[in-house]
Amino acid sequence: MHQNDAFGALGRPECLRLLAEVPVGRVVYTRQALPAVLPVNFALDADGSVVLSTSPESELVRAVDGVVVAFEADEFDARTRSGWSVVVTGRAALVTDPAEHARLVQDGPASWMPLRDVVFLRIESEMVTGRDLRGARGVR
Amino acid sequence: MHQNDAFGALGRPECLRLLAEVPVGRVVYTRQALPAVLPVNFALDADGSVVLSTSPESELVRAVDGVVVAFEADEFDARTRSGWSVVVTGRAALVTDPAEHARLVQDGPASWMPLRDVVFLRIESEMVTGRDLRGARGVR
Repeated sequence: MHQNDAFGALGRPECLRLLAEVPVGRVVYTRQALPAVLPVNFALDADGSVVLSTSPESELVRAVDGVVVAFEADEFDARTRSGWSVVVTGRAALVTDPAEHARLVQDGPASWMPLRDVVFLRIESEMVTGRDLRGARGVR
Repeated sequence: MHQNDAFGALGRPECLRLLAEVPVGRVVYTRQALPAVLPVNFALDADGSVVLSTSPESELVRAVDGVVVAFEADEFDARTRSGWSVVVTGRAALVTDPAEHARLVQDGPASWMPLRDVVFLRIESEMVTGRDLRGARGVR
């Protein structure tokens, strides 16, 4: 499942189209010098950036604000051994502009958790890579 | 979705039981000083370590052999906003013992890709953490 020649590379438009189809992805970052990963629900903004909602006191905000992170989403079918994965790599930053914040409260991702206060984290889609696994048995 | 108080922490036995239910997880590591993540199919060995099969020439082997990585798996239901995630953090190492290799060729995870040569990577389950999201609407 990790040989490059068995995957088809996906272009940026196709990657963003696939990302928009799934509700949950994973933020990949570093926590106390160790690799860390946190699944989150998210929305894709019009510019292709990934937007998450969280609590202002969350560990995630402390760990990733201003830092380059990866964000991954995928879908696989074990029966056909096919699927896709997309990774966005870019700088994460808290949304601090009040107008932007207000827009996201209306149109942004609703946290799956009840939050007293909400902040939004945006991950810029500076690098977007994706791969399409067609199935080792040629099912797809 | 990232507030600690909305999640139930899962114990190690429950984490390993859940990991054994899913075919695909994600290796989280560092590539050229950037966070990197790669979905892979895997098997859970009897000692709770995560075992992957890959090509000896794969970028993954070069990047993670001898290094502490994270390995994540999850399952979420967007309708009920419930699910779980498990993260194993530990040292990744190529399986070099011939008897161990032979055993994994028989019983280990079969790569979803046709591989000319296969090697196995083992991620020790030194730290296993998991969280259970019960659903913001109390469905679960």
